[in-house]
Amino acid sequence: VLKNICVSLSFCLVLSVSSSTLAGLIEPLPAIPPIPADNTMTPEKVELGKMLFFDPLLSGSKWISCATCHNPAMGFTDRLPRALGHGMSEGPRNTPTVLNAAFIKPQFWDGRAATLEEQALGPIQADVEMKHSLEGAVEDINKMPEYVEMFRKVFGGDKPVTPENIAKAIAAFERTVITPDSPLDRYLEGDVQALSPEAARGFQLFQDKGCIACHNGPALTDGGFHIIKVPGSVDLGRYNVTKEESDKYSFRTPTLRNVALTWPYMNNGSVATLREAVEVMGREALHTNLSPEEVSDIEAFLNALTGDMPRFEYPILPSGRL
Amino acid sequence: VLKNICVSLSFCLVLSVSSSTLAGLIEPLPAIPPIPADNTMTPEKVELGKMLFFDPLLSGSKWISCATCHNPAMGFTDRLPRALGHGMSEGPRNTPTVLNAAFIKPQFWDGRAATLEEQALGPIQADVEMKHSLEGAVEDINKMPEYVEMFRKVFGGDKPVTPENIAKAIAAFERTVITPDSPLDRYLEGDVQALSPEAARGFQLFQDKGCIACHNGPALTDGGFHIIKVPGSVDLGRYNVTKEESDKYSFRTPTLRNVALTWPYMNNGSVATLREAVEVMGREALHTNLSPEEVSDIEAFLNALTGDMPRFEYPILPSGRL
Repeated sequence: VLKNICVSLSFCLVLSVSSSTLAGLIEPLPAIPPIPADNTMTPEKVELGKMLFFDPLLSGSKWISCATCHNPAMGFTDRLPRALGHGMSEGPRNTPTVLNAAFIKPQFWDGRAATLEEQALGPIQADVEMKHSLEGAVEDINKMPEYVEMFRKVFGGDKPVTPENIAKAIAAFERTVITPDSPLDRYLEGDVQALSPEAARGFQLFQDKGCIACHNGPALTDGGFHIIKVPGSVDLGRYNVTKEESDKYSFRTPTLRNVALTWPYMNNGSVATLREAVEVMGREALHTNLSPEEVSDIEAFLNALTGDMPRFEYPILPSGRL
Repeated sequence: VLKNICVSLSFCLVLSVSSSTLAGLIEPLPAIPPIPADNTMTPEKVELGKMLFFDPLLSGSKWISCATCHNPAMGFTDRLPRALGHGMSEGPRNTPTVLNAAFIKPQFWDGRAATLEEQALGPIQADVEMKHSLEGAVEDINKMPEYVEMFRKVFGGDKPVTPENIAKAIAAFERTVITPDSPLDRYLEGDVQALSPEAARGFQLFQDKGCIACHNGPALTDGGFHIIKVPGSVDLGRYNVTKEESDKYSFRTPTLRNVALTWPYMNNGSVATLREAVEVMGREALHTNLSPEEVSDIEAFLNALTGDMPRFEYPILPSGRL
């Protein structure tokens, strides 16, 4: 089957492969995500990162933590169209889930951070997010002896509390936040019953219609940038990072894992339901009108991308202060 | 020993009892708090209440949950002088901990709610807290079939989602949030080593100086109202509820359990450290100047009031919508 998959002005791809090869573009979620050589994972580092992830101390207001918007109770996102942050003001974009972000690069809708480590320091400083400074965050943490001791054990050195180490710890925690064993994973591993007939038809449509051209790999994202017209969006996207004319309105492909939990959709959160999201993508990315049955089948497939949520104890944060 | 303990204009008490009897005014934290006959506790109800406690769905913004300010990671409070809420605006008072609130009545700094059930619906509606309406909250929950099913199982009936049932479920969860086994509890149960010599001296001072006149009972609060001059406070307190002249500036005695974790202190959060709090209370409530050594000993005693924090799994909230 010759497939001409043209999903945007900036991204046009001719795939001359069979559907079964296309299915090979999607793999079960690996048990362990890629771990950078300069940020090995230890239980102590993960625990420290978990605490920092939940600590409003990292915000200027001392009221907002990473977990406020990347809420673990709601698929590590906020279920709002666009993120709220400092002053409860609204940012320009929909909060991406942290779930399986370890399998994605680059980070952010506009790909402005290459790694989780780079990403972690962004929201701490953003005016419409946590509105703190890195110096301020380091100073605040240094006032908490339990934190300083944890940083010393994890990173060593005389002054272990640094922005770099804050980022490393948070990234290490984030690499534990993965969702294996979705119906799709079980299906890919050979359990043909794992997908309902509807979802199996949807998986075939996902390949035949070309969704898979961008939504592939373990996290169902190619990590590439694509221009797709989204209702109401005037956001210049990747252009703000590169200043390349050809990047105007382009965004990095989001993961589809757990997409059923991470409504609303698109860079501006303008699409409320999964069904509408499939329709919009059919029209704007694939330039095709999917039939209502096709949309239902693809929706069933997307519902089969929900994996096991990471379960963990609510952290107890350090309380002692100098 | 005749003790004349006069802690405020509205509260003057002559206790003609020995210190050992005074110590009897403090009891180990019971394993189970009082449970109202019309709100029995079941695991399903507690689980539902836990979800509601963590769900920003109950706020007008969909961004603020009970747990935002009553943060389980920080002793079920926010470690801010005064609560932040909707719009990140600041309320008038310090967020009280939910820990052991099951042993306290009435609720709120000004005692305007008799029970946890009555309390629970206040912050949902308050403009400077969650700023929702009860009708809106019921409507929002009714859009989530998983919630409706849980309410039906717990409360029965055709329309199980009501403000009353929301309050009952949240209160049932709150009754599980208790902190047994503090050093004081172990001491009261006969383990004389459980208090350090400093803390044991502090306990004696706590009785001799008269702190115990108001801070008694399992949660170390008498549930009474007292006028105590607090730095910077102009809050009319209980008066706003009763409109009785004699209630001006009076507040309900706060619990001292876990007080080391629940800084800052006083109704307006104007006192940053436990040490200063002891000094202020000595001066303003007991009309005595405690020596630096006495303050240190009482502080050591207060540090011995930290119990075992409730540990639980981070909840996963319902995600399906009509």
